[in-house]
Amino acid sequence: MKVSLSRKYTFAASHRLHSPEFSDVENQRLYGKCNNPYGHGHNYTLEVTVTGPVNPQTGMIANLSDLDAFVKSRVLDDFDHRSMNDEIPAFRKTVPTTENLCKEIYERLRDFPHARVERIRIEETSKNSFEYTGPATQ
Amino acid sequence: MKVSLSRKYTFAASHRLHSPEFSDVENQRLYGKCNNPYGHGHNYTLEVTVTGPVNPQTGMIANLSDLDAFVKSRVLDDFDHRSMNDEIPAFRKTVPTTENLCKEIYERLRDFPHARVERIRIEETSKNSFEYTGPATQ
Amino acid sequence: MKVSLSRKYTFAASHRLHSPEFSDVENQRLYGKCNNPYGHGHNYTLEVTVTGPVNPQTGMIANLSDLDAFVKSRVLDDFDHRSMNDEIPAFRKTVPTTENLCKEIYERLRDFPHARVERIRIEETSKNSFEYTGPATQ
Amino acid sequence: MKVSLSRKYTFAASHRLHSPEFSDVENQRLYGKCNNPYGHGHNYTLEVTVTGPVNPQTGMIANLSDLDAFVKSRVLDDFDHRSMNDEIPAFRKTVPTTENLCKEIYERLRDFPHARVERIRIEETSKNSFEYTGPATQ
Amino acid sequence: MKVSLSRKYTFAASHRLHSPEFSDVENQRLYGKCNNPYGHGHNYTLEVTVTGPVNPQTGMIANLSDLDAFVKSRVLDDFDHRSMNDEIPAFRKTVPTTENLCKEIYERLRDFPHARVERIRIEETSKNSFEYTGPATQ
Amino acid sequence: MKVSLSRKYTFAASHRLHSPEFSDVENQRLYGKCNNPYGHGHNYTLEVTVTGPVNPQTGMIANLSDLDAFVKSRVLDDFDHRSMNDEIPAFRKTVPTTENLCKEIYERLRDFPHARVERIRIEETSKNSFEYTGPATQ
Repeated sequence: MKVSLSRKYTFAASHRLHSPEFSDVENQRLYGKCNNPYGHGHNYTLEVTVTGPVNPQTGMIANLSDLDAFVKSRVLDDFDHRSMNDEIPAFRKTVPTTENLCKEIYERLRDFPHARVERIRIEETSKNSFEYTGPATQ
Repeated sequence: MKVSLSRKYTFAASHRLHSPEFSDVENQRLYGKCNNPYGHGHNYTLEVTVTGPVNPQTGMIANLSDLDAFVKSRVLDDFDHRSMNDEIPAFRKTVPTTENLCKEIYERLRDFPHARVERIRIEETSKNSFEYTGPATQ
Repeated sequence: MKVSLSRKYTFAASHRLHSPEFSDVENQRLYGKCNNPYGHGHNYTLEVTVTGPVNPQTGMIANLSDLDAFVKSRVLDDFDHRSMNDEIPAFRKTVPTTENLCKEIYERLRDFPHARVERIRIEETSKNSFEYTGPATQ
Repeated sequence: MKVSLSRKYTFAASHRLHSPEFSDVENQRLYGKCNNPYGHGHNYTLEVTVTGPVNPQTGMIANLSDLDAFVKSRVLDDFDHRSMNDEIPAFRKTVPTTENLCKEIYERLRDFPHARVERIRIEETSKNSFEYTGPATQ
Repeated sequence: MKVSLSRKYTFAASHRLHSPEFSDVENQRLYGKCNNPYGHGHNYTLEVTVTGPVNPQTGMIANLSDLDAFVKSRVLDDFDHRSMNDEIPAFRKTVPTTENLCKEIYERLRDFPHARVERIRIEETSKNSFEYTGPATQ
Repeated sequence: MKVSLSRKYTFAASHRLHSPEFSDVENQRLYGKCNNPYGHGHNYTLEVTVTGPVNPQTGMIANLSDLDAFVKSRVLDDFDHRSMNDEIPAFRKTVPTTENLCKEIYERLRDFPHARVERIRIEETSKNSFEYTGPATQ
């Protein structure tokens, strides 16, 4: 019997979308107001879905306290109340779009030891969300 | 690396569920209060999910402004603040259930040029939602 | 000891904003797409707030089942899955704006026998809400 | 043409996580405050997803009133405003974790006669949700 | 310049509505399924509103970390994952309706030292909420 | 007959809480992670409440399109996708706490010509909200 468990976390961060590969005019055309020079920010909601067999003794896939501690140390401590462009090394060379953020967070969480990380879902606003299921599953 | 992007849109529309293939009594039994003769309405939430490889230069699957313009011209301009029975040609011959609405909206959006339209999800109320993934995928 | 209790109800209805006192051009300018001729609809959320002393024996202001039955018979049975312009007598002579809807529903609920109806709040969409506290309190 | 329909139901119930296979100390370490001796409770949201071909005459997968009646008699009547440990026979021998609750509710709903029950999703809080798609599909 | 600040907290607890002043039949008639003998539970949302002048140096009414610590020690530590009937002394002699819960929590929070506690609001479910503004203000 | 109308708007912005009147150590102690040097951001929800008599001819307090245009030109155009510390003149000399943001936005909106601006409410996150009703009303 396999069940999936999804847990939501939130963090507030700022970013600016700007690529050194394009001119200023192209950046402005491509990213619109997300290219504004001083940056802006969001309340991001991260939903982590893990899957696995239900342990017949405990009745659980994984202990939420283990997942919480893992996500805190791998993601929230680095991202919450931070500037992604300035403080996350991965975004020195890639643009901190939510697509790239999905991948970065997936890489930080994929080796959760107690269950398989099936999916990362990030809501950037109440209207936009992005999902990533890892390099092999699609 | 493939990511999916989901974007929510809202529109307000009215409809009446009534099929010419059934008698009035059968329509009433089948559709209940949704068959009330003068119509009623909903705030529909449409969530469009598109999937594709992340462009390594831009860090995006597709530009939200392109998706917004496409959904506006193909769907919102025709449906928002409209009566589906009276103003959407497809619902002259089919009943405007949310199931049929999913298909109609999917057909209008499936040729989005910048990414594959993976799924259409429509919330009719906060309790009911419907998903359609196109004719071939199931 | 006085406490207020707020209870949410939902109904789906259609309406069209159009006043016989104005020309068609003026109606279009005034109400915009809400004036579209075939009507449109919404999922309305009605929040009724009642206030009163807490009965020391029961620990309650009023019984929710009494309030539910009252709101059902006075409001929901008439409005849910209905066309307000066609089926609510009050909207034969006034335009079914949410402002006027607040007043109409307040009048239907103000004589709730078990507690004072303090406020009516109606959400027309997730962005717009309207409140009415009755003729004397402001 | 196949569409899926998801419908949300809510029920309030209490439970305590405690396994007779473990010592009191182990139970406390394993389940944390969910092991508190007098129990606690949640507002559970159950989302049932059914899938099937859309009936070309009715435009529906299944009638919501049929699904509502089925879920009420099979689940809500037994679970709403109940103690799961004390009043649900399945939880005399298994711990009422949400993982096990998913399975129990799936078993009660899987023979819905009008469409295939594709997925059961339970929100225990606004942060935690669990999904189960049945024994064969994973 | 006075501003009010509202902060939401959540806790999960169980209760049973039953008054020793009434017969079993009267309790059942009065409280309905909330009188079910083994108790049930809710995810309660507590919103605390404090008001005061904005400190011109800090730009704040009060520090959220102070409010969080106060609410945790006075309310959450006692109520979260607890049975109110069994574990909250105030509910040995009064029925744990949400009206009485408002008063109990207000009494525990009213002497917050950094700003005036203006209002306590408790959501028992997504449909029901209760507000209490203290003994003197109404 | 007076009714109030509340309309929600959203904007994404970044800020850093840091006061030149305090030492770095004091700033860190006072604002915690909100003092992180590179800034962070939020999705702010602004709810504007206006009150007035309902025009008996139009059935409206004010036209939403007028309010939308006013809020866009006075607030959203300046704040959305911006850094408040760097791009809003008022926050050169005051700290961009949400308390001060309430006041700044109230001052920008208070002379709305079509109805009285009764209240400004800002949600910084789903847990925190702030209200301001102007200098004279409290």
